Amino acid sequence: MKVFNFNAGPAMLPASVMERAQKEFCNYNNTGCGIFEHSHRGAAFQAVLDKTNQNIRDVYGVPENYDIVYIQGGASMQFAMIPMNLMQGAADFVDTGTWSSKAMKEAKAFGEVRLAASSKETKYDHIPDFSEWKLSDDASYVHITSNNTIYGTQYRTFPKTKAPLIADMSSDIMSRRVNVADFGMIYAGAQKNLGPSGLALVIIRKDLVERTPANVPTMLRYSTYTENDSLYNTPPTFGIYMIGLVTDWLKEIGGMEAIEKMNEEKAALLYNAIDASNGYFSTPVKKDSRSLMNVVFRLPTEELEAKFIKMATENGMIGLKGHRSVGGVRASIYNAMPREGVEKLVDLMENFRKNN
Amino acid sequence: MKVFNFNAGPAMLPASVMERAQKEFCNYNNTGCGIFEHSHRGAAFQAVLDKTNQNIRDVYGVPENYDIVYIQGGASMQFAMIPMNLMQGAADFVDTGTWSSKAMKEAKAFGEVRLAASSKETKYDHIPDFSEWKLSDDASYVHITSNNTIYGTQYRTFPKTKAPLIADMSSDIMSRRVNVADFGMIYAGAQKNLGPSGLALVIIRKDLVERTPANVPTMLRYSTYTENDSLYNTPPTFGIYMIGLVTDWLKEIGGMEAIEKMNEEKAALLYNAIDASNGYFSTPVKKDSRSLMNVVFRLPTEELEAKFIKMATENGMIGLKGHRSVGGVRASIYNAMPREGVEKLVDLMENFRKNN
Repeated sequence: MKVFNFNAGPAMLPASVMERAQKEFCNYNNTGCGIFEHSHRGAAFQAVLDKTNQNIRDVYGVPENYDIVYIQGGASMQFAMIPMNLMQGAADFVDTGTWSSKAMKEAKAFGEVRLAASSKETKYDHIPDFSEWKLSDDASYVHITSNNTIYGTQYRTFPKTKAPLIADMSSDIMSRRVNVADFGMIYAGAQKNLGPSGLALVIIRKDLVERTPANVPTMLRYSTYTENDSLYNTPPTFGIYMIGLVTDWLKEIGGMEAIEKMNEEKAALLYNAIDASNGYFSTPVKKDSRSLMNVVFRLPTEELEAKFIKMATENGMIGLKGHRSVGGVRASIYNAMPREGVEKLVDLMENFRKNN
Repeated sequence: MKVFNFNAGPAMLPASVMERAQKEFCNYNNTGCGIFEHSHRGAAFQAVLDKTNQNIRDVYGVPENYDIVYIQGGASMQFAMIPMNLMQGAADFVDTGTWSSKAMKEAKAFGEVRLAASSKETKYDHIPDFSEWKLSDDASYVHITSNNTIYGTQYRTFPKTKAPLIADMSSDIMSRRVNVADFGMIYAGAQKNLGPSGLALVIIRKDLVERTPANVPTMLRYSTYTENDSLYNTPPTFGIYMIGLVTDWLKEIGGMEAIEKMNEEKAALLYNAIDASNGYFSTPVKKDSRSLMNVVFRLPTEELEAKFIKMATENGMIGLKGHRSVGGVRASIYNAMPREGVEKLVDLMENFRKNN
C-alpha cells in the first residue's frame, strides 16, 4: 500500500527526489562512492554545494546582498545564535506559539526581550494584526515565527519593520513567494520542506554578520559560515545534497509560483471539508490565520479522534496525530505531499463523518 | 572499476552498510517511507536510536555511569562546548597538531589554557611522552587529540590523569579497544569511522554534566542531550541511523578486538612498504607514534608525489593527497577500508618505485 506521510517533521520528501537519491546512493555521479563518502573539499561535493546555493538563490529570489549558509543544530540552535550575534541591547518578539516562546527564552540570556505582540491569551489561534504590534525604536531586530506547526497558524503577509525582521520559517520555507528583501534574516530547520533533519538553512543580509561581538565562539558566529561558504569545518554534506535535489525538483515543477498554487489548492481541499462538515470537524484557527502547511482540526470527541487517526493509519495515512501539547488531528501538507494524499484524506473524513 | 576511497573524512563506509541503507532508503522496515521521513518521536526512529545507543555501549564497552549522546556541529562545536560546560578556571591541553590547537584557541574565551605538552617544535612528528607532561593540580580537565589526521600520529596508550581526561577521537573512534573509564569524556565527529558528517558522538561521564554554568544556552548544554536522550529537538536522524548500521556491522565482524586486529594489519602493510623502500618512501612520523588510521608519507620529489597520486586515481584509489598544510601523500585507512584496498595501494607503491 502506498503510504502518505502527514508527519509534522521530519516529513516526507518528494518521491522522485527519494528515488534519485536511492539510485545514486552508493555511486554518486559515477564516482564509485556515495556523495557523503566524498571529501567536503573535493570537486564532487563543491559542485553540489554550488548548485544548491544557486538553486535557492534562483528559486526563492535571494538578492545578492544576502548570504546563503547551512548551520548545524536546527532552528533551536538559531534561537541562541541570533541573539548571540545580533542582539545589541534589546529586540522585539512576536509570540505566536511554542517555538516563538522558545526563541524568546533563549534570547533572554543576551539582552532585553520585548514582547511586541502575542496571541497567547486566545491559545495562539491567530496571528496578531500588525496594527496592534508595539515595536520599539531601538530594537536590534524583530523576531517572528512565520508558520506555527503546533497551532496551525501562518502569517499571510509580512509587516515592514524598521529594525531587521528575522523570521523562523522552519515549517513554511520555500512553500510560497516571499520578498526576501523584506527580511534581515530568514532561517529554517531543514526537516519539513527542504531535506533531512540536521541543519538549518540561513539566509542573512550581509551587513548583519558584522555585528557579532568578539568573544562569540567560532562555530557560533555567522561570519564563520558566510566567509567560508559553509565550509569552515565539515558541513552536513548529505543534508546539503538532499536540499540540492529538493530544489532541483522545485525548479522542475515551476518554482515558487507553482508550488504556492499547489499548496493553496491542497489546503483549500482540507479547509473546505472542515467548513462543510456542519461542525463535525472544526478548527480553532481564525480564518485569516489558517496555515497552508499544518491543518489542525478536532472531531466531536477525543474517542472519535483516536478512531479517526487509527483508521487513517490503517489506510496508509500516517503521522496525523496532533502535537502532544494540544491533541486533536494535524495534517502536515508540506511541499512534498501530493494532492492525491490530501484527496485521500478528505475522502476518509467524509466517509468517517457519515459512519461515526 | 571498483573505487577505493582513501579520503581523510568524510570517508568511506563499509560496503555492506551502504548497500543496506540504499535498499531500505525509500521504505524503511516496510513502513512505506524512508527512515529520515519518520518523526523523531515515532516508534520507528526510537527503535533506531535505542539500538544505536546499545550497540555503542556493547561494542565499545561504555560503563553505565557514562551517557551516550549525539550533538550537531561536529568536533569543532565541541571545541567550544567543552570549555563552555566544563572549564572552571583552567584546563590542561596537549598540542599534537592542527585540531589540538583549534581546541585550545576556542577554550581561551572561557578560562586559562595551559599547555601541558607539545610536539609543535618538531612539526608534530610524535606524541609527547607522558613523563614530560606538565599537568596542573587544579585543571578542570586534560584535553588531548587521540589521532592526528593531518600529521599521521596517534596515541598508542593513554595516560592516567587526575583531572578528567577528555579525548577528541574524531579520527580513531571505535577503531580499537579503549578503556572508556579512563576518560571523563570521549567525543568524535562522525564522518570518519561512524557515519556521514553532521554530528559528533559524545560519551560523557554522568557527573560532569552537572558542572555547566546557568547562562549557557539550552542547545549548548550537555545536560540538554543527556536528560532528553538526544531528543530535546530534532536530532540528525539519518546520521544516527547510519551509525546504527555501522555499529551493527562492527558487532557482526567481531567487535573492537576484531577491528583492532584488522586495522593493525592494514597499517603494517603500508608501514612495511615504506620501511622496505630504502628511503624512496619516507614518513616523518616517529615509529612509536605512527597512526593506524592515517598513514602519511613522502616520495623523493613533489613531482613524483603528484605523479603517484595521479596514477593512483587512475587506478581507482582516490583521496590520497596529503592535507594542503603539509603536502605529500596520506592514506586514510579507517575501519571501513578493506584490506584489499591497502594491498592494491602497496602494489602500486612497489610498481611505482621500480619504474620511477
